[in-house]
Order: sequence, then structure tokens, then C-alpha cells
Amino acid sequence: MKNKYSLLLVLGILISFTIRAQGNNDIPDIPGYKTLKCDFHIHTVFSDGKVWPEIRVTEAINEGLDAIAITDHLKYGKLGKYPEVQEKNRNRSYEIALEAASKSELIVIRGAEITQGMPPGHINAIFLTDANIAQKEYMDTFYEARKQGAFIFWNHPHWKSPDKDFKQDGIPEWYDVHSEMLKKKLLMGIEIVNGRSYSKEAHQWCIEKNLTLIANSDIHIPIGMEYDLTLEHRPTTLVFAKEKSENGIKEALMNQRTALWFEDNIIGNETLLTHLFQESIKIIKTEYLENLAVVTISNESGIDYLLENTGEYSFYNKTNFVELNAASQLTLMVKTGQVMDQFHLKWSVKNMLVAPDTYLTAELLCKKSGIITDKKEIK
Amino acid sequence: MKNKYSLLLVLGILISFTIRAQGNNDIPDIPGYKTLKCDFHIHTVFSDGKVWPEIRVTEAINEGLDAIAITDHLKYGKLGKYPEVQEKNRNRSYEIALEAASKSELIVIRGAEITQGMPPGHINAIFLTDANIAQKEYMDTFYEARKQGAFIFWNHPHWKSPDKDFKQDGIPEWYDVHSEMLKKKLLMGIEIVNGRSYSKEAHQWCIEKNLTLIANSDIHIPIGMEYDLTLEHRPTTLVFAKEKSENGIKEALMNQRTALWFEDNIIGNETLLTHLFQESIKIIKTEYLENLAVVTISNESGIDYLLENTGEYSFYNKTNFVELNAASQLTLMVKTGQVMDQFHLKWSVKNMLVAPDTYLTAELLCKKSGIITDKKEIK
Amino acid sequence: MKNKYSLLLVLGILISFTIRAQGNNDIPDIPGYKTLKCDFHIHTVFSDGKVWPEIRVTEAINEGLDAIAITDHLKYGKLGKYPEVQEKNRNRSYEIALEAASKSELIVIRGAEITQGMPPGHINAIFLTDANIAQKEYMDTFYEARKQGAFIFWNHPHWKSPDKDFKQDGIPEWYDVHSEMLKKKLLMGIEIVNGRSYSKEAHQWCIEKNLTLIANSDIHIPIGMEYDLTLEHRPTTLVFAKEKSENGIKEALMNQRTALWFEDNIIGNETLLTHLFQESIKIIKTEYLENLAVVTISNESGIDYLLENTGEYSFYNKTNFVELNAASQLTLMVKTGQVMDQFHLKWSVKNMLVAPDTYLTAELLCKKSGIITDKKEIK
Amino acid sequence: MKNKYSLLLVLGILISFTIRAQGNNDIPDIPGYKTLKCDFHIHTVFSDGKVWPEIRVTEAINEGLDAIAITDHLKYGKLGKYPEVQEKNRNRSYEIALEAASKSELIVIRGAEITQGMPPGHINAIFLTDANIAQKEYMDTFYEARKQGAFIFWNHPHWKSPDKDFKQDGIPEWYDVHSEMLKKKLLMGIEIVNGRSYSKEAHQWCIEKNLTLIANSDIHIPIGMEYDLTLEHRPTTLVFAKEKSENGIKEALMNQRTALWFEDNIIGNETLLTHLFQESIKIIKTEYLENLAVVTISNESGIDYLLENTGEYSFYNKTNFVELNAASQLTLMVKTGQVMDQFHLKWSVKNMLVAPDTYLTAELLCKKSGIITDKKEIK
Repeated sequence: MKNKYSLLLVLGILISFTIRAQGNNDIPDIPGYKTLKCDFHIHTVFSDGKVWPEIRVTEAINEGLDAIAITDHLKYGKLGKYPEVQEKNRNRSYEIALEAASKSELIVIRGAEITQGMPPGHINAIFLTDANIAQKEYMDTFYEARKQGAFIFWNHPHWKSPDKDFKQDGIPEWYDVHSEMLKKKLLMGIEIVNGRSYSKEAHQWCIEKNLTLIANSDIHIPIGMEYDLTLEHRPTTLVFAKEKSENGIKEALMNQRTALWFEDNIIGNETLLTHLFQESIKIIKTEYLENLAVVTISNESGIDYLLENTGEYSFYNKTNFVELNAASQLTLMVKTGQVMDQFHLKWSVKNMLVAPDTYLTAELLCKKSGIITDKKEIK
Repeated sequence: MKNKYSLLLVLGILISFTIRAQGNNDIPDIPGYKTLKCDFHIHTVFSDGKVWPEIRVTEAINEGLDAIAITDHLKYGKLGKYPEVQEKNRNRSYEIALEAASKSELIVIRGAEITQGMPPGHINAIFLTDANIAQKEYMDTFYEARKQGAFIFWNHPHWKSPDKDFKQDGIPEWYDVHSEMLKKKLLMGIEIVNGRSYSKEAHQWCIEKNLTLIANSDIHIPIGMEYDLTLEHRPTTLVFAKEKSENGIKEALMNQRTALWFEDNIIGNETLLTHLFQESIKIIKTEYLENLAVVTISNESGIDYLLENTGEYSFYNKTNFVELNAASQLTLMVKTGQVMDQFHLKWSVKNMLVAPDTYLTAELLCKKSGIITDKKEIK
Repeated sequence: MKNKYSLLLVLGILISFTIRAQGNNDIPDIPGYKTLKCDFHIHTVFSDGKVWPEIRVTEAINEGLDAIAITDHLKYGKLGKYPEVQEKNRNRSYEIALEAASKSELIVIRGAEITQGMPPGHINAIFLTDANIAQKEYMDTFYEARKQGAFIFWNHPHWKSPDKDFKQDGIPEWYDVHSEMLKKKLLMGIEIVNGRSYSKEAHQWCIEKNLTLIANSDIHIPIGMEYDLTLEHRPTTLVFAKEKSENGIKEALMNQRTALWFEDNIIGNETLLTHLFQESIKIIKTEYLENLAVVTISNESGIDYLLENTGEYSFYNKTNFVELNAASQLTLMVKTGQVMDQFHLKWSVKNMLVAPDTYLTAELLCKKSGIITDKKEIK
Repeated sequence: MKNKYSLLLVLGILISFTIRAQGNNDIPDIPGYKTLKCDFHIHTVFSDGKVWPEIRVTEAINEGLDAIAITDHLKYGKLGKYPEVQEKNRNRSYEIALEAASKSELIVIRGAEITQGMPPGHINAIFLTDANIAQKEYMDTFYEARKQGAFIFWNHPHWKSPDKDFKQDGIPEWYDVHSEMLKKKLLMGIEIVNGRSYSKEAHQWCIEKNLTLIANSDIHIPIGMEYDLTLEHRPTTLVFAKEKSENGIKEALMNQRTALWFEDNIIGNETLLTHLFQESIKIIKTEYLENLAVVTISNESGIDYLLENTGEYSFYNKTNFVELNAASQLTLMVKTGQVMDQFHLKWSVKNMLVAPDTYLTAELLCKKSGIITDKKEIK
């Protein structure tokens, strides 16, 4: 029945939508680690956001996130963005969110955004024990955060802030103060994805300086007003943690075990991305129709994959570019020219960036699992 | 209003579906030529197809095709696939289709499939004046077709026919008889796309031997049973003709002016694909937000484009891979680092193949059209 | 979490599409009987249809039908619609379809359409042992069919045939010959739904004369060219059979155990429709929020229900008209005014016709299953 | 081309989605009045809502509303729901929203919710000049509102408040104090639709006491978290105003010129609903196929209509229940039995309530506009 193919296609799309809408943890775990979906940069009316902290919890649960950090700007408070919100205690937005999440599995992390002009720009500290850390000198604020055991990262270094001291060309600049922070272990990661932006320059810095890659929404308005959640997802830091807990996340962040989910892309180091690819894409079977290998490949993740064939064999039913969408299957007819006990499909994974402009190279082992005897199949 | 972005996205998708469903001629014309959507390999119950010829006309009109060729196998007739269809006149299926199309704009072309074992395999002759051309020796049949002024092409050289004399590995083989046919001008094109298959080897032959590229459905069952027409289209030969007429199509085929629309790919020579790209993708405006270029790009075609940035500038809001779906727009923020009177975006167009594994390289000129003064826009 | 409601709505719709697309047998069985989805009026190229018989089998399997009858017109053959189809044996289309279905669960029934002017109009005979039954006098043809044990029914009595002897106003007329056929047991059912038409007059006749209700597609072209199968279904006779077999279907037809699925409507007698309703619509739970009953209702069928509340209680969250789509759930808040051990919801089921303009009256028993203590829920 | 029908169906659905997504003013004007889409009961963080006032403006613009009233509870303020929001001026949320709307067409109305236990329950006053109206005695507050020229209405009389003094059965109760308010012209309307609830009892009161019908969202969370705006709309008061202005709306409210858009229902008086129906549903043409009238009906509104045929003629291609979705067309074949210069289609409009359980009766005049001569059309 030839048209089962297109039927499966339709069902694949529906299932894909369903999974995404449900917000299940549709990013697979990798060997030894749970994959946690996190957003570490979120605002509420307690700084310049537009929603009450509870809403941030409901949003995150609906989207299937594992953890969020509430990171209102420290500078607002006494005399802030909204004069009507008269709260000096910088912990309040976190406390309200924590209470709202109390009956759920969502982890809420206490954070703060230390908002400085450039340099050093905006800095997030998360895993604080008390968010009232603002000091006269910003460096002292960082020290205070560090004293509390915080994970500290530089937000959107490429940001075109309306403020004068920020560059407006989207190209980030590394200042001496950043080197100083790095040296003093006050800078552990960089938000190379912020909202709808990505900085390849900042990406390169992370690689060179062994900093943790971070992607956040930096959301101020209701999340559904910014992202059409039936079609897309917020930028997410995937954290590969030994356990689903606040400590588990912190340990992973401190050890650079993250990957970033930005639009259809996954950004991270080669080892982690290789694991994630291997857990996402499975060879279901490899059957031979005489000398042609008929391989069934399944994408068991919520990630849309874009694969370029770089192996020695071309395909009978595809050009070299293959899209393998979330939660769907594909049949590849591989022109091996002979029956082989096993062979490798080789890919340049165009939606997986191991460095700026550099894509993950991946292999999939295809072991012969059977013979197709009915030659009447697909022409 | 930030969320207008995602709203446009939704509308873009809807409009894209709408256009595709309508089957309008959503592939743009190129300078000097009309772009005609054609399928030159179609069967009916008059050979081994499963539908009456009229249905082929209705299907083609519904999908917005400009021309179809009815190409029933010559070998069936007296003693054929279906003994119940007792028709010796090989013109009948064409005549029925022609009558059915008489009140429409659809061009119906008289053809025949000359069905031989390998070599030379299956050969289509179209633009016949009388389809009763079968001779004892197949070469004589080709001569008869040529005498009628036919355009003759080799069907699916890579086909895994159930017949013994065909190879089963999907890798086509060029025989002496093909060289002979070529020399005697009895072979003018090759169907490198047939149904859901593509042959890179046959693609290479066409380039080396200056043969016309052909893509056909070779449909036997109702088209909607094979393709989900709300989501995909049949394989189509795009013919760049001086006029929409049977002669116009023939002249273009004789002069290798075709490109193939296979899934999301367009396959053709560099010149034609460059024109098609330029007519599809338009720069709507290039405004500067200080030193950042904000470029609005529109895809005015029914083709889903997959673009890799190969230019000197990276993007603020995208990684290097950019999907620009049919009938949709995109805003690219280009990190030019300075205001420029004009610059070029440079792309490797991953869905446009100028040769096997070789993608079209294309440029888009962006001329400064304005300045954005409101710095409050997208963060 | 309030927005779970709309999320469920979306998922419900997706699941509904999925089930429909899969073509599973999504009409529930009723006590004592299997519910079989059947189409008893189908054409092929062996009369004036446009497809080869095999296609009818593939279509039916794709749509999840249990049985089809191939009913080509007897009058074509020697000298028929298509002179090219020279087949005198009226069994051929059935035989080809039967062979095509041999590896599936689909039941293929041998039939014929006895095509007369009006009166008596077109008559279908199914469960023939030999379709070559045409006699000089049509009444003799009916006798021949009856001798073979056929089930005989009048097709589309309301049809606006292009032939002169047919009325053109869509209002069927009962002639003496029909009374004669009825008396001689040569008329057992009437096709009151044919394609996109329904005749309330013919519906009334069936009730008065105790004839079997029949709904058929009478399809001539590919089914997907007439119906958008992702959104709608072909008109279907639901047969309530003791077993899934040809005999089971015949026994049910002979005993008037059918209901018709026409667009979103189900047409049948009160007893059968009551069973079908009760098997489709289930009360999942009835909890009390103080004196308000919160009832969860599930539609476990593929039928879209349209319900008008005719009970003594009105709803807190709905007006009296409630749409309960295929494969979805609904929460009704019923203003009982007090906690009750049990009560009945009473409905006029607007998509279930027990007679022309007469809707099924149905009740659903709601037994108290719990108390909601958290008053913070839906405002 | 038969399958154009289903193609149109698909396009109709797409267009319908598109229109709804765009949030255009897709409810038609009626003779003499503009139809304005309004929501007069909206909360922000300035009482117990969860979003900043600006968000309410963006939401309303995205949904194509013409006017909103910001109606934060008066009781919060000094010592309120959120102790962190220390704002004594009850005008602030309105002022912030007004400023946010300043560059748009959206009308923002100053309001307040006077939150009392039952009786009299929650009362909204809108068109205030100063929202700081709270007095020791609630009756004095109403007088103060009235003095400012406010339109005063009773919110959700059927509400199951968690507060003790509210009934919990969803059945509203009319107290003496309401009679007193009515007499003193302190009660001008009732919110019979609030969020996802509708009260038929309150509906009846409005009719008996000549009060203005009101439907509001009473939204506290982001609107997109409560309603899936691609599939549904917030409950909306349709105001039939002489002009689009604050005064226009007020004049209409004072004169009971409203209808309510609740789910797929429109609730209002017979005159207004008749106009709305006539402006929504248009007869495009009435052609005769011999004695059968073929009527093309178009729904030019954003309302999904559910029509029951109550006229003397039945349909050839439909049962009596006809769904005519937003922005779509339908062909009805009406069995008039003869050619008529004109006739009326008569409907019970099941989605238009002129009173509890009472549907609008409507007629559509069909004037003969042509003759169909091609008898080959739809069987």
C-alpha cells in the first residue's frame, strides 16, 4: 500500500505536534546524565517584567521545563522601573514563584541580574541564598554572589542595549574587566543565545576560555506573547545532570555540561552532542532488497534534525539533504552496491553546532537485520 | 508588538498551505521564459495504470500543472496487462485525456513508453503525431518516434525493476546501446527523478553529455493515493519556455531548458537556477539600526528554501542555516559592523543542486533603504 | 492550571484527526453486534467508473471500511460506456477486487447495478453468486438476483438523472412497480443517502414500509478526489452484524439492522441509535463542588456529536447546545441545585435522526462519584 | 471538477483561521451602528491580576478588540492582595494602559470593581472620571460612581465564590438590595457571561428588567494562558455604537444595544440579532437546476453559525442541521418542487439566543438569479 507512506507522514507531524504541545521531556537523556530543560534568565514585575512571578511557574510547567531561575534586576527596588512595586527584598519574586511551584516537579532557582553598563554589562548570578547582594561596587556584588556559591554568567554580550555605553552592531567586545572576572572565577558562563539572538563571537569565547554555554529567554512579557508555543519553543539550556535537583543542575553548570536548544539548533561540545544525537536518532532496521540497503531511521526526540549525507554511499530516494523531524520516521534506501553485514551512515548534522560554523559529524551503524524478498515493493 | 512576529509566522504557513492547495503557478517565471510545471510520464488503464485517462487531467488541473504527457506502455494492447482493455490504437488514452482537457488551460501531450529490457531499458517518446510506433526492433521504434519529431528520453535508468535483466542496486549502468542512441540523436534526456527516487549517477551523465534533465511521477495509481497533496507535490519538470504551448515546451526540452522540482529540491544548471533563485527570493528592504543591517527577505515562490550563509557577515538572529519557506518572509539582522551603502548576502542554496552534491552559490544585493531610529525595537 | 483546559482541547482535536486519518474502526460496537462500516455502491472502469477495481480495495482499507460491494452497471459490457473495455463477464470487476483484498481483512461483496429508467430506476443487487443476471425484462433480472439470494435495494430514488424519465426536483416518487416489487420481496432497502445527497421522503418510506436504510458513496472517481479524507468521510452504512463476515452482513441487512453515517449525522431507528449513543458517550465521573455537579463526559467514537440539553437542569459553563467532537472530552457543570446520588442528563441528539426531522432523545445517568474540596478551581 | 468542493472547504477553513488569527473586526456592522468588540472586566497586578496593565493592551490589540475597561478591585490598595504593590491611587492601572494604547486604535475605559460580599456581590462601574470612589458604605460608592456618569453592572451573579456568603450552586439569587439598586438607577446591566460561564437565570432577569446584557473575560492571567486564541476567542460584548468612541460605547450600553459573543453563541435581543444575522449571512445566488433551487450562501462574519431548517422545503444535499462556519460558503440544494421567482429559507439559528432556551428565527430571501443548463453537474 504505497500511500501508507504519506499517511505516516501526516501522523508523524501530528504526533510531533502532540508531543511538543504536551511539553513532555522530549529531549532524551544521555548515558550517565539526565537531560534537563532550563531557562536561567526570567523577569517579573519585581524588576521590569510584565507578569507576576506565579505566571512564570505556570508557563514553565506547561512547556515541560525542568527548572527556571527568577533573575530580576537588582537595580530596581527602592527606586525602580515601576514605582508602584515597592519591595526592597530582592528575594520576593523568587519566594512567590517557589511557593507557586511547590506542588509541581518544577525546580525554581533563586537568581539576580546585576545590571551594569558596559563593561562588564549585565551579569546573572544564580543559586543565591539571598538575592540582596547589591554592593556599591559591582565587583563586590560579584564577590558576594560567589561567596554564596553562585554560578555567575555574562548575559547577552552582543546586546544592542538602548543605553549609550553598549555597542549597537551586535558584535560583542571582550574587555579587561572580563579577563579579570575570569581570572578571579567570577565568570563561569556566557549567554550566547538570548531570546531570538545568537552570537557566534561569544560562542567562540566560550570554547577558547572553557566557559559554560547558556541559552535563555530573558522573557519580560507572557511567554505565549513572544513564542507561538504550538510551533516553536523558548531558547533553552539543556543541562546534563547527575540527578534532577538544584544541586544536580549547579554541578553540571559548574562543569560545562550544557547544550543549547535555539530554534531548531543544538549548540554544544562534540562529546555531548554526539551522545544527544545517538540517543535521538535510532536505526530501527536495515534490510536488503537485493543489493540495496533499506534503512528505517527514527527520530525519537523533540528536535527537528537536518542531516547532510557525507558518507560514501548515496541514496536512492533522497538527495544528500535529509530532514528528519521530531518524533518521526524515515526510510532511506542506501546504494551500498552489495549486501554488507554492516556499514556506517555518515552525516554532517547541520542543526548541531560544535563551534561557530562547524557542524557535528556523526555516524550511525547499520547492521543487516533482514532481506526483503517481495520485489514488488516501491518502484 | 513583539508577538506580531509569530503571528506572521502562522499566517505565512497558512498562506503557504493555501497557495500550495490552490495549485497556482507558484514557481516564478524567469527573464525571457515562462516557467511551466510538467509531468511527462503518466499511465492509465490503457497500459498498466489504474485510472481512466480523464482522471489524469483532473488531477493535473487541481495541482496547477501546465502540461502532462500520457505515456502508456506500447507493449500492452493486443495482449496486455489487462486483457479486458482491448484497444489496439495506442492513441486512445491520449485522445480521451485531450478531450477531457479541452475546456481548460492544460496542455496534453501525446506520448508512449517504449518498454524494453535492459539495455536500453524503458524509453519515453513524447510529442508523437501517432502513438502506434512499435516496430519489431526497438531501435526502429526509436527511429519512427524521431521521424515524428519526438523528444526521446531514458526513464529511470536506476530502476530496480522486478525483471531479471535490470540491476537491483539502484546504481544505473550506461551501455553501448545508449552511446549509440546518443550518437544517432535518439536520446535527448534522462529521467533522473522518477517518483520518489533520484539518481546522482544519472544526474552526472546528463551534465557530461549535455542531456535534458527530466523529473516525472510515473504515476500508476490516483495521484492523491501516492502524494499527500496538502503537504507535498508530485515530482515536476520545470520547463522554461518561450511561450505556453506544446511547441514552446518541445523547443525548451530540445534545448535543455529544464529544472527539476523533487521534494524540496530544485535540480538544474547554474544559469537557470540562479535566475529561479533571483526571481524567488527578494530583498524587500535593508534598514540600519545603527551599525546593524536589518534585512527583510521574501520568498515569493512555492519552493521551500534552505540557505547556508557563506558570506563574510554572520547574523544576529540566526545561525548560518536559514529556512525560508514558500510564500513567507524573514527578517535577518546582519552584523555588517558598519553602515554600508550596499553589500551582498552570500549563500550556499542547499535545496538547489547544480550537480550531484554541488549546491548553487547565490548572492543577494542589499542596498541601504533606510535607518531605524527607534532603538526600543527587538532586543 | 487553567490553561490545561485549552491544551486538552488542542490535543483532543489532534487525536480526533489522528484517529480519523488512521481509519480505525472508530464507531463502537453495540451489545450483541459488531458495527461494520460498509459501502454497497461502487463503480469501476468495468461500467462507467474511472478507476481499476484494485483501487477500490486500497481506498477502502485506507479508510478503515469493513466491507465494500462492487456494483458496476449491468447495461455496460458488450456495448458500454467505454468501448475499449470489452468484457462480457459481469463478475470481472468483483474478481479483481476480491483478489486485491485477499491478504487484508476487507470483505468484498459481489454486486451489480440494474440500471433502468424510472420506474423503477436504478436497483442494486448484492451478495450475488454470478453477476451475469441481466434479462430482457428487468423484473426477470430482479427474480434472478433474488434466486441467488441477493439483497436488493433501490438506489437514490431522489436522483436528478440527466435522463428524461427521471424527475429533476430531487423529490422521489413511489410508483406502482415499487409496490409490486415490495410485495414480491424484490425490494428490501432504499439508499436514502447517496454521495452528498439525503432524501427525507425516502427516509420516511423506509420507516413506513420496514425497509433497510442504506447509505452509499456511488463513487465513480478516486475517492480522495471527491472527499477530503483528512476532514470528512464517505457516506457509510453501519451494519450491526453478529459476526464480521459476508453472511453476517447479509443477515443484518435482511433484518434492517443498519444506521447511516452521512456527514456528521447518524440515521437509524431509535433502538440502534440509542445503543450507538450509549456506547459512544460515556460519563467518566460526576463530582460535586458543593451543590454543583461537575460531570466529565467522553466521546469515545469517531462521530462528532451535537447535543441539545432538554433536561431539567441547565449548565453553568455552557448554553444548551453542546458540541462533543470525536475522541474528545468535555466537562459539564450541571446546576442540580443540590447533591444528588444520581440524576439524568437528557438530550436531543441533533446529529442522530430516528425519522425525518426527528432527533434521538437520549439520557445519560450520572452517579455521584466524589466531592471536590478545593474551592479554588475554575471560577 | 467535483473535488473543487473539498478544496474550497479546505481553503474556507484556512481563511477562517487566518481571519481569526489576524483579529480583524470580523463581526459585521449593522444598519446605523458600528459593531464594537469589547471586554469590560479586566484585572492587572494593581488588584489580583497577574500581569502589568500594558499587557492587557497588547492582548486586546492582537485579538482585534475595539475597547477594554480596566476594572481592578477597589478593595485592594493600601492593604491588598499583593502587599508589594503599594499604590493608593486606583487610577494607576488605567493610566498605564491608556498610555500603552496611545498609538493604537484601542479605546481604554477607566473602571473599577466594587467588591462586596453577597448581596449585592461584585459590581463594576465603568466610564469613571476618577477611580478612587470607595466609600465606607458600598451604596455610597455606587452613588459616587453614578455621580461620575458611570455605567454600573452586576458581575457574574451566578459566581461560586470561595467566600462564604456566596452560593455555591451556580444559581443566582436576586436580593432586595438589587431591587433597590435598580430602582435608584444604580444597576444598568448584568454580566450574564463571565469567562467560561453563562447564567440563563441572569439572562432572564435582563430581559424582564430591561437591563443591558454584558459578557466579559474577567481575566486575571495572560489571556493566551486561558484561551487558545488560534481556536477560540475571549467572551466579548458586542456593542452597537453610533460611533467608535468612548461616548459611543457608553451611549449604546445605556440603551441596551449589546449582544454577547460566548463561544460560538451570540446572545441578544431579537432585533439586534436579526440585523447581525442578516449582515453575516448572504445569499450569493439562487439558480435553478430544472425544479431544484441551488442556493449559494456565504457567511461573511467570524461567527460559526448552526442553523436548523424550519422552512417548508427540505434540502437535497443536507439534513435539516447546517453548520456554516466563519468566513465560508455553502451550496444548498432546496427542494422547492418548482421554479419560483423567490422564496424564503427559514431557520432556527441555534447559536443565537434571544432568551434562555429560545433561538432566533430568521429568514433569508432567495430570488431567482439564473438557470443551470448543464445537467451533468453534481449527481
